[in-house]
Amino acid sequence: MNLKRYLPLLEWLPSYDRQAFTSDGLAGLIVAIMLVPQGMAYALLAGLPAEVGLYASIVPLVFYGLLGSSRALAVGPVAIVSLMVASTLGEVVESGTSGYLAGAVMLAFLSGAILLGMGLARVGFLVNFLSHPVISGFSSAAALIIGFSQLKHLLGFNIPRSHLITETIAHAISDINQLNLVTFGIALGSLVILLLFKSRVSPMLQRLGAPKGLADALGKSGPLVAVGTTTVLVWIMGLNVSNGVKIVADIPSGLPALALPVWDLELIRELLPAATLISVVGFLESVSVAKSLASKRRQKIDANQELIALGAANLGAAFTGGYPVTGGFSRSLVNFTAGAVTPFASIITAGLIAVTVVFFTPMLYFLPKATLAAIIVVAVANLIDIRTLREAWAYNKADAVSLIATFFAVLSLGIELGIIAGAGLSIALYLWRTSRPHMAVVGRVGTSEHFRNIRRHEVKTDPHVLAIRVDESLYFANTAYLEDEILACVADCDQVEHLVLIMSAVNFIDASALESLETLCERLHDAGVTTHLAEVKGPVMDRLENVGWLKHLGEGHVFLSIHAAMSELSPRYAAKVA
Amino acid sequence: MNLKRYLPLLEWLPSYDRQAFTSDGLAGLIVAIMLVPQGMAYALLAGLPAEVGLYASIVPLVFYGLLGSSRALAVGPVAIVSLMVASTLGEVVESGTSGYLAGAVMLAFLSGAILLGMGLARVGFLVNFLSHPVISGFSSAAALIIGFSQLKHLLGFNIPRSHLITETIAHAISDINQLNLVTFGIALGSLVILLLFKSRVSPMLQRLGAPKGLADALGKSGPLVAVGTTTVLVWIMGLNVSNGVKIVADIPSGLPALALPVWDLELIRELLPAATLISVVGFLESVSVAKSLASKRRQKIDANQELIALGAANLGAAFTGGYPVTGGFSRSLVNFTAGAVTPFASIITAGLIAVTVVFFTPMLYFLPKATLAAIIVVAVANLIDIRTLREAWAYNKADAVSLIATFFAVLSLGIELGIIAGAGLSIALYLWRTSRPHMAVVGRVGTSEHFRNIRRHEVKTDPHVLAIRVDESLYFANTAYLEDEILACVADCDQVEHLVLIMSAVNFIDASALESLETLCERLHDAGVTTHLAEVKGPVMDRLENVGWLKHLGEGHVFLSIHAAMSELSPRYAAKVA
Repeated sequence: MNLKRYLPLLEWLPSYDRQAFTSDGLAGLIVAIMLVPQGMAYALLAGLPAEVGLYASIVPLVFYGLLGSSRALAVGPVAIVSLMVASTLGEVVESGTSGYLAGAVMLAFLSGAILLGMGLARVGFLVNFLSHPVISGFSSAAALIIGFSQLKHLLGFNIPRSHLITETIAHAISDINQLNLVTFGIALGSLVILLLFKSRVSPMLQRLGAPKGLADALGKSGPLVAVGTTTVLVWIMGLNVSNGVKIVADIPSGLPALALPVWDLELIRELLPAATLISVVGFLESVSVAKSLASKRRQKIDANQELIALGAANLGAAFTGGYPVTGGFSRSLVNFTAGAVTPFASIITAGLIAVTVVFFTPMLYFLPKATLAAIIVVAVANLIDIRTLREAWAYNKADAVSLIATFFAVLSLGIELGIIAGAGLSIALYLWRTSRPHMAVVGRVGTSEHFRNIRRHEVKTDPHVLAIRVDESLYFANTAYLEDEILACVADCDQVEHLVLIMSAVNFIDASALESLETLCERLHDAGVTTHLAEVKGPVMDRLENVGWLKHLGEGHVFLSIHAAMSELSPRYAAKVA
Repeated sequence: MNLKRYLPLLEWLPSYDRQAFTSDGLAGLIVAIMLVPQGMAYALLAGLPAEVGLYASIVPLVFYGLLGSSRALAVGPVAIVSLMVASTLGEVVESGTSGYLAGAVMLAFLSGAILLGMGLARVGFLVNFLSHPVISGFSSAAALIIGFSQLKHLLGFNIPRSHLITETIAHAISDINQLNLVTFGIALGSLVILLLFKSRVSPMLQRLGAPKGLADALGKSGPLVAVGTTTVLVWIMGLNVSNGVKIVADIPSGLPALALPVWDLELIRELLPAATLISVVGFLESVSVAKSLASKRRQKIDANQELIALGAANLGAAFTGGYPVTGGFSRSLVNFTAGAVTPFASIITAGLIAVTVVFFTPMLYFLPKATLAAIIVVAVANLIDIRTLREAWAYNKADAVSLIATFFAVLSLGIELGIIAGAGLSIALYLWRTSRPHMAVVGRVGTSEHFRNIRRHEVKTDPHVLAIRVDESLYFANTAYLEDEILACVADCDQVEHLVLIMSAVNFIDASALESLETLCERLHDAGVTTHLAEVKGPVMDRLENVGWLKHLGEGHVFLSIHAAMSELSPRYAAKVA
């Protein structure tokens, strides 16, 4: 059992058959076709040589395939993590230097170590503290930053890197006379090919009679077609020489060499905070896509095992000259719909990428960077998420506020500070809400045993007995508010002799709140009001009894239900019940 | 009404009479007698000249008296705030320089502005985020640091300032051969006088037939007696010359000059974070003593008005050469028990201190610093709080952990970082607890309409209907846990057809949790289980209906009570009810 948890492949390997292999093989091929240009494009986005993206698409995929609990997750370079790598290294080392590459490898190593450590310590739950609206705001802003970072490749002239979109746009406009028209044409052409393939090709082929599976697979080959067309065009017409179109140029042939990361303690100290964020964000993206795919086939994802598998994948990247990887959203969806039934599909993808690296890199010499930029732009456009904002706005303004705040914080403060500010704000809003709990004075519904809020229902009350339901656990941040509100409530009803606190929604009382409750009982006692409790939950009651707290109620009692309390305390109520 | 809120003196001034004046006069005198040596001692603790402590005991008291909502609070220099001033300025400017004094004045100004701003913005609730255990751990550690910081005055040789007690002790031991025996003797003598007065004098006088009021008042004069005795001793025997006993020496005569704080933007930037902490900690100390005294006489404290009054008091200190002040615990208790009935007592105290500054400072020339150190040590000993730790340990380990962690964090990281770490930990522990909510499968108690946890009560269940009560609001940090637990519960009961989620303790569902609940319903539907809700609170139901969420329940319903749900869903239960 335990071995199966740590080695999920024991689940599927024994029953692996030819049919599964065919299915995995096709999915693996389609993902590889998608991953070659994507891997190179994301490496460029990260400020790294194109081959680093390919190296990160070999060993990590194998490691994840052996250890991951998801059957369909496709691991590799992804847009947001690449952007975070660029933004981190941009502040620490010069782009294009060997130190930059060493930094990327070190980020993969640290990220792997952190993920592995979190998985072994079973603290995967920590990532739950990033709420959905925060992630949505972050993704939208990151997509915009990524998109605009590609402007220089699309327009063909240098624009200084900046996380401020406004600056990027200003630079682009002021230097627009440097526009390389041929490069821009290649970019537009690539965009048209990509968008056509994305939306039109599969339905068209199906109308022409192609089977749905084949049509969908061909629909995914847009990047390959764009790469092929533009590469051939540049090669034949010599556009790189005649028109200065930037190309990928030399990519070293052969598999990456095994190597240890360069051990530089100062560098590690500088990269550690960013590596932690990269790990958390990467893990979140990965685990959310893994969960949504698993639920479609009634499979289960073990978050802690995912941490271990992604940790191993990143360590694999670090030892083979790659950079941080994680499970990608669109790629995994392609893998899943193309029919991947086991992680063996990923291992096939890795094999095909390895073959590409060994034999086909010379064919990519004339590949224009503008095409890769177009691939990135089309890929990240999916990340811009208006729907979550619309839904959050309709449902709960506080969630919408965290989303919008995260979005603007990322755009103005940058990736790392932005997401930290967003997460901090969402936690602060939660604390703020719990610090001002909802309270309701309740009365009896008709002649039933049910009691409801007097403001929302037609109910009967007794002027001598005040029943207040507190809709929140009691803890340090809300005790002062609670005390004030209850005292104000009692002060408003001058005939009150008994206060019944209904504790059905109080799941916990901490030490500060207990002290405060004691003070409240004393003050009410001095004012001639006896405090009672009703519907106290078992775990809460245990604690109160443990420390002998109930003596502070004085004449007050603890009732099983508000019905029982009213039967005892209100002669009027008891008469009606009898 | 509103004017009375902002000027609480309108409450008591119209009916002020001779009896109140006599009562306030005596209390004001006793507090003044206590405040003269304490004010000087705390100023020395803050690294400031003794007279600064006196200046901070004049105008601030008048301002608080005019604006404060507490009738008995005695404002002035206090130990913890003085320590925080020393620790802040120690890192920014050299002690003993004019920059140091300017820094202290600026801290009072910033603190006043922050408090006033918080009061006008009515954000007094923010201070509730410091829990009682954190404050207790902080106070105990601060008391130790303060006590050991006085070692140099008690032993009569220089010990470098350090927030690490171990370092202070090590220095003291290694240089013990420099011990000034006469100074040490004066310190011991003062300690004996102070402790005798504190515990023995009042009961002894009462046994001898003195009225309790007078006996208690004389009992509070320990500091005055110690100051008088040791000053006269040093003066007559010339101990400052012959034995190098450190004395207070020249204190400028006359009232402090009105002055603006030195406007130095760089200094403000450096002091701002510490000023914020000083404001919050000072306000907490003040408001908690004000509340406890007010409740004894059924008076009310308005936290936001207290912020305004303390803000004005600190601005008053800043413009008259003082340093940050707040309401002191022991001093306010003395004021209260000595019979202060209105804030006029404080104004009398201020007047007496002003008279002291104008006429009596020459009498304090030979006052040994060792005596002031002894006064500080006896005063802060009360801050060491073992009782809260013992109670928290018995009641709730998490609270005890925050207390202990804050204590050690303050001792090892220093005052500011220590309290921030403690507050952060207490919030993290709260979040951690709410991220793993308690859940209970419930069954019917006997033939009643009540349902309780099957693990705690003898109850009846139906294998086809699973009723789970979730004991926490649903928000981003606990949705993943909840989903996993509920799915595991359902997986354990293979006959289940209906799941009823009892929402009586769910006070809120945020957007992340709503999405997660939707996924849960879908997955359960796929597994042939229909999800129902019961006992949904009004505010939660409103939100669900607003966005039309209930369609995600499919065949499921929302029941008013679990009883109604079981009557409908369980034929067995319905039969018994009928």
